[in-house]
Amino acid sequence: MCETSSSLLPQDQALVDGVLARERRALAKTITLIESTRAEHQERARAVIAALLPQSGRSIRVGISGSPGAGKSTFIEALGTFLIDAGHRLAVLAVDPSSTISGGSILGDKTRMESLCQREEAFIRPSPSAGSLGGVAERTREAILVCEAAGFDVIIVETVGVGQSETTVAGMVDAFVLLQLPNAGDELQAIKKGIVEIADLVVINKADIDPRAAAIARSQMQMAMMMLRPASHHWRPPVLTISALKKEGIAAFWDEIDRYQATLLAAGEFEARRRRQSLDWMWAQIDSGLRQRFRAHPAVRASLESLSVAVASGRTTPSSAAKILLDHLQSR
Amino acid sequence: MCETSSSLLPQDQALVDGVLARERRALAKTITLIESTRAEHQERARAVIAALLPQSGRSIRVGISGSPGAGKSTFIEALGTFLIDAGHRLAVLAVDPSSTISGGSILGDKTRMESLCQREEAFIRPSPSAGSLGGVAERTREAILVCEAAGFDVIIVETVGVGQSETTVAGMVDAFVLLQLPNAGDELQAIKKGIVEIADLVVINKADIDPRAAAIARSQMQMAMMMLRPASHHWRPPVLTISALKKEGIAAFWDEIDRYQATLLAAGEFEARRRRQSLDWMWAQIDSGLRQRFRAHPAVRASLESLSVAVASGRTTPSSAAKILLDHLQSR
Repeated sequence: MCETSSSLLPQDQALVDGVLARERRALAKTITLIESTRAEHQERARAVIAALLPQSGRSIRVGISGSPGAGKSTFIEALGTFLIDAGHRLAVLAVDPSSTISGGSILGDKTRMESLCQREEAFIRPSPSAGSLGGVAERTREAILVCEAAGFDVIIVETVGVGQSETTVAGMVDAFVLLQLPNAGDELQAIKKGIVEIADLVVINKADIDPRAAAIARSQMQMAMMMLRPASHHWRPPVLTISALKKEGIAAFWDEIDRYQATLLAAGEFEARRRRQSLDWMWAQIDSGLRQRFRAHPAVRASLESLSVAVASGRTTPSSAAKILLDHLQSR
Repeated sequence: MCETSSSLLPQDQALVDGVLARERRALAKTITLIESTRAEHQERARAVIAALLPQSGRSIRVGISGSPGAGKSTFIEALGTFLIDAGHRLAVLAVDPSSTISGGSILGDKTRMESLCQREEAFIRPSPSAGSLGGVAERTREAILVCEAAGFDVIIVETVGVGQSETTVAGMVDAFVLLQLPNAGDELQAIKKGIVEIADLVVINKADIDPRAAAIARSQMQMAMMMLRPASHHWRPPVLTISALKKEGIAAFWDEIDRYQATLLAAGEFEARRRRQSLDWMWAQIDSGLRQRFRAHPAVRASLESLSVAVASGRTTPSSAAKILLDHLQSR
């Protein structure tokens, strides 16, 4: 009784079969269906995802964030090639709510990860370019599930630091990685934006250019982590130095991801985090749906603006205004 | 049409008149009415507040936070005495959501501010002891309005660091003050809890005991502020050292509050902050009301738990579950 009872259309059953058979074309078409904003497509997408769901979940989901210029695509390309050579299959997704405005998107320019794009074991998909962070995030979350059902056992979710995108991505991955440049300015930015608190691993890139600067950046970031990161019994986030360009430190990075996963699995935290993320996500969508219905209610629409003005100007208390508006809902 | 149209009962009109006439007994009774959880009392309280609202707002609202032992009550007593001697009238409220559990409350023990309690120009009220932070905060916000209508031109809202109480208090005051002990451990705590970012002023107390330690704490806190606090064009939060016990630095502290208020008023930020706070508060109450109604809906109650289990275990996607639950609302 908990499942959506939608039956699959024949063409959607073909998508499901194709994804499970690891066909790239079916995978790409399924994600396109998910990203569509048309109501009938959304209905169909829900049914497809529901059918794929039992085959999803068997991956490690890694979020990678870093300011422009930190070398995210070079890093992902080096990491991806390393992982494929080690027998993994890798999907790279992106969360970039600014892509609607900028036209371009991270990952939009496929030439950025040229050698990775040529590998059969890699699937690279740019950010959905439809509006709000919440919408982009929802579609990316669902794309993760579909990629897992298609047999990708490593899912990378890349994000740039737009608004709350890092926190959003951290809420959909198992491990959140912060990629840093070896300079104090970049560290300051990360601290100010509150990303240091949510990082499970920090990687200082471009260590080949000035190894001493990288070592200093590393010890400063370690201090900042100790100060800012809430103490966990299970995991103290490490700070690594690498050179993505020279492919140095990539294996050591993945060793840390392995160690992280093993540690959290042993502590029961890995599954607990996924459960928490799913429930948080359900409630976020419920809250957003409730607000949407609320704003669409005729009586609310008729008085929301004047009441907001009254509250802002101190003529009505926030409590009274909230009560009046909520009371409207009864009188439908 | 924006006002609540409730007419006042005779005894409530007496409360309104009493508060406006600055009678302590009427003020105390009004706040007791606000704190009551009975529905009819809440209805009456809303009408009383609506009647007092035009006379509210003419104060500076100062939040004071600090870890236990930082000397909050000594500081407030010294500050209060100073302000009264300077011609001000001072109300001290508290937000302590733990007071229900602990039985005691900050400010519950009135002997802590003995000399301030004896002054006619001071009104001291312990934290409402009813449940959640949201509830405590709502009642305190309304108590602020009533105290302002009773002619208090300085409102102090004290809080201990329980859960999100600092952020909540920062959202209801004009100036948020962080009171610190002169040691690195206390500074670390404040940084970890994210209070440094929201402080408009930082005060290091007990500077008389070890002035050198206080000076070091001050410069370290100044560095931390620069790192953590988002840059504002209008105000760079100062870090002061004082000794509340010896009443040293109190006048200098108030000078800073004056300078803060003047700066923000000139920039139009003072009123903008109050408007933003009121609207945020209205929406927080709407969201909470919507969730409450949602959870109370029979069809939601019947399926929420099993759907939550299905989502947590990965059998249903968060989106599907949210949609099923939201669809229930239509079928009332």
